[in-house]
Amino acid sequence: MPQTPHIERHFTASAIVRDIVIGMADGLTVPFALAAGLSGAVADAGIVVTAGLAEIAAGSIAMGLGGYLAAKSDAEHYASEERREHQEIREIPREEMKEVADIFREYGLGEDQVGAVVEAMTRRPKQWVDFMMRFELGLEPPDPKRARTSAAFIAGAYVIGGLIPLAPYMFARNARTALVISVVVTLVALAVFGLIKGRYTGARPLKSALQTTLTGGLAATAAFLIARAIA
Amino acid sequence: MPQTPHIERHFTASAIVRDIVIGMADGLTVPFALAAGLSGAVADAGIVVTAGLAEIAAGSIAMGLGGYLAAKSDAEHYASEERREHQEIREIPREEMKEVADIFREYGLGEDQVGAVVEAMTRRPKQWVDFMMRFELGLEPPDPKRARTSAAFIAGAYVIGGLIPLAPYMFARNARTALVISVVVTLVALAVFGLIKGRYTGARPLKSALQTTLTGGLAATAAFLIARAIA
Repeated sequence: MPQTPHIERHFTASAIVRDIVIGMADGLTVPFALAAGLSGAVADAGIVVTAGLAEIAAGSIAMGLGGYLAAKSDAEHYASEERREHQEIREIPREEMKEVADIFREYGLGEDQVGAVVEAMTRRPKQWVDFMMRFELGLEPPDPKRARTSAAFIAGAYVIGGLIPLAPYMFARNARTALVISVVVTLVALAVFGLIKGRYTGARPLKSALQTTLTGGLAATAAFLIARAIA
Repeated sequence: MPQTPHIERHFTASAIVRDIVIGMADGLTVPFALAAGLSGAVADAGIVVTAGLAEIAAGSIAMGLGGYLAAKSDAEHYASEERREHQEIREIPREEMKEVADIFREYGLGEDQVGAVVEAMTRRPKQWVDFMMRFELGLEPPDPKRARTSAAFIAGAYVIGGLIPLAPYMFARNARTALVISVVVTLVALAVFGLIKGRYTGARPLKSALQTTLTGGLAATAAFLIARAIA
């Protein structure tokens, strides 16, 4: 890959920021909506706290372990596709050479240049496989340490995000009183989170804030209406 | 892109299967763990059902809308990077030409061929941008309809997955009785889901079944212990 300086301008979100965003977005939204929903059905804030903490434990483990397994399976997928490409280059080199040639014909190269590129590839099987991985399959080599850090950041962000909407229920006895405070606090937190997320991901901050607030608000309203209807 | 037949052998999971897997994995896990957790704290199965349905509403909206917004923002990200590449090709063509040259030098092309490839690229700015998008940034053009179908499949799979662990609580009065049935039914469902998921994603089915069952079991155990400790 080219390491020229201007690449960094393209890089708007690092992997860790992405993991924090994933965990925090759901952590602020789902425990918030669950607590709001339960407030529509039960008066005791203690039950809301119990359910909320159970949800935070369940959600952070499910998301963290999910992120871990996804990163692991991406790495395994890459390794197995790489083995397959090596095998194809050995067993059906003519087909693979034709694929390289077709790619470069599409970019407007003349037959002489296409022949030269194909010939250069066949002399370096390792680079040839890298080229096919990236170009034919669109796969980038994965970072081996990614799975663990990814799991930790997703789960941690989920827990922190989930404790914000739940905190009011820990201090108020009555679930309805806590609900009002939780709604205000969490909608503000969702908006701030959306603003910061927008800055990091390159989206317009106000639009991003509107999206996170709306998602949380919709999820909470739906949960509240459903819980009230069946209680 | 080359459209040779052997590409399809690489293709193990379509976008829709991926969305169903994402929604179902969390739908089977989080409502299951929440219901199990609440069963450690309250005896009334009705409260578990209320909390579970509120969670399914919240989780499916959060995940579905999250998938929708992620697909939309991927599309916007692609468009904005594409504009930037077009601009760079116009404004700093020498730097961009050097990047193309560096890429092909790494693949072992001689200077003559590198020069010819660069020259061919500069004659077709559209293909040149496509090349940089895919090669320098690793970005594929997004499907414009993706956001809506993605949201619907993720949310639908979450609801279906979430109703499986919750069903026993709807028929049993006592939460502890329902818990036992829910644990058995859901662990079997998680294992079956893992097997099918493994087949579609190319992972070893037994390993995949073990992973989904373990994730759900761990999340439920943690939620149960936390809820019981504070109740």
